Amino acid sequence: MAKKAAEAGSVRDVLLARLDGVELDTIDPAGTPVGPTSKEEAAADLAVLAPRLDELQERLYAEAVGGGRRRVLLVLQGMDTSGKGGVIRHVAGLVNPQGLHIAAFKKPTAAELRHDFLWRIRRQAPGPGLIGVFDRSHYEDVLVARVDRLVPAAEWRRRYKQINEFEAELAEQGTTVIKCFLHISPDRQARRLRERLENPAKRWKYNPGDLNVRAKWSKYQQAYGDALRTCSDPVSPWYVVPADRKWYRNWAVARLLLEALEEIAPQFPEPDYDPRGELVRLVERDPLS
Amino acid sequence: MAKKAAEAGSVRDVLLARLDGVELDTIDPAGTPVGPTSKEEAAADLAVLAPRLDELQERLYAEAVGGGRRRVLLVLQGMDTSGKGGVIRHVAGLVNPQGLHIAAFKKPTAAELRHDFLWRIRRQAPGPGLIGVFDRSHYEDVLVARVDRLVPAAEWRRRYKQINEFEAELAEQGTTVIKCFLHISPDRQARRLRERLENPAKRWKYNPGDLNVRAKWSKYQQAYGDALRTCSDPVSPWYVVPADRKWYRNWAVARLLLEALEEIAPQFPEPDYDPRGELVRLVERDPLS
Repeated sequence: MAKKAAEAGSVRDVLLARLDGVELDTIDPAGTPVGPTSKEEAAADLAVLAPRLDELQERLYAEAVGGGRRRVLLVLQGMDTSGKGGVIRHVAGLVNPQGLHIAAFKKPTAAELRHDFLWRIRRQAPGPGLIGVFDRSHYEDVLVARVDRLVPAAEWRRRYKQINEFEAELAEQGTTVIKCFLHISPDRQARRLRERLENPAKRWKYNPGDLNVRAKWSKYQQAYGDALRTCSDPVSPWYVVPADRKWYRNWAVARLLLEALEEIAPQFPEPDYDPRGELVRLVERDPLS
Repeated sequence: MAKKAAEAGSVRDVLLARLDGVELDTIDPAGTPVGPTSKEEAAADLAVLAPRLDELQERLYAEAVGGGRRRVLLVLQGMDTSGKGGVIRHVAGLVNPQGLHIAAFKKPTAAELRHDFLWRIRRQAPGPGLIGVFDRSHYEDVLVARVDRLVPAAEWRRRYKQINEFEAELAEQGTTVIKCFLHISPDRQARRLRERLENPAKRWKYNPGDLNVRAKWSKYQQAYGDALRTCSDPVSPWYVVPADRKWYRNWAVARLLLEALEEIAPQFPEPDYDPRGELVRLVERDPLS
């Protein structure tokens, strides 16, 4: 089944956010709407997928060495414990780290707040040939900023348009944007927070503020729903990734990345030198022999 | 044999650059002076080593979340095709990419040249909890700068002391510096350059300038020898990594990194909150139930 889905290239189609008139809570965070239905199946598909991802990433990188401008930006959003870090480890970790540009956006610093909300984001946009990964993003500025009333309503509403324009710019520059909402249930979050508190090796991942954010669950779901509805278009789509099962979440994001890279179909560049002439220089006129 | 060497923690001892009165060309680039003597043995040892590296990297990262200042800087130097990129892919690729800070130093830009040679290097020094990887480094400023006479002799000679002071600073800040010279033979370089020219998927890695640099092989070996002699001390040692065999090179750098992390022995931080109190908040007073 995993294989069939992959061949049909349908993971993007199935996970595409379609939230017009629909709330996020109608989508099952523990679902497996496409692809593998067991951990074993997912692992088997990832094993097939990994070398293809690796090769496509190398081609993308090489293409930019030859002057290409194309690149990828994977945006990861989701409630605490939804697995943004896990995706970076298990999906981004499948490719050459040299080809990655990872940026985590925490609470803005005083210096960052003196600028437009997109300032710090633009600085971290991936260069040509790279796969950028955003652990949180400019969407925080219509999520936490809205829920915690950090700015007036007119301000965060204006940001939707600014975000759409920014992402259109990225697309024009040659960036394929893939936005993943890691969709987790409140029960699963409670379980993961408990694990973090009970396991001394995981306590560093916990922050007492996490429970304060959890208390605003429905407000966040509403803010996510609006962001996904308002800022999703063909050049910069949102995907809803069921994230209660880690193996499904990782598989799905890996597939979304693979499908995007396959569509880009990056090419090794033609050399801007004469390979035959260089071979002659090397073999017949080797400076060292 | 690989296991014994690893248990004795002796890879650092064996590969430590000891070049007083000795030239680099007395060291065999195809040698296996410690550890595995076959590709299969190396792969088996790497499989054991990988999860340990991964765990130690996570601890280092976690320690910094708790306020720790320790970090690692792996400096990779070597002639073209010696495998700096291969080490990043196969060794740095073993850990969570979120914990890496990779910087490649190419020919300095006009903007960079307006600053002191260490300016661009300092900007890329890894922050607390990270494993920094330098693909080329400040050593280029006593290598190519010397061989190609980009600066007067008095200038590059002065840089040895500046480098030593800079690296002592890094160590004081909590950085464990591991410098690897990937030692390749001219014959093996010729073979790898030929592969790059013959294989269309590798031509992007080749640059006609590579043959010009190759022509200055002995000057570079002399410059490397002097740099390794002059800038190696206990807090910032150089290792000579035989690099004609890729499997040995990768194994050796992975072991050097592992030994350094084991010596650091990073610790998960004590929480700055009360885990029991938080568990009560979560389980008995869950805001969502």
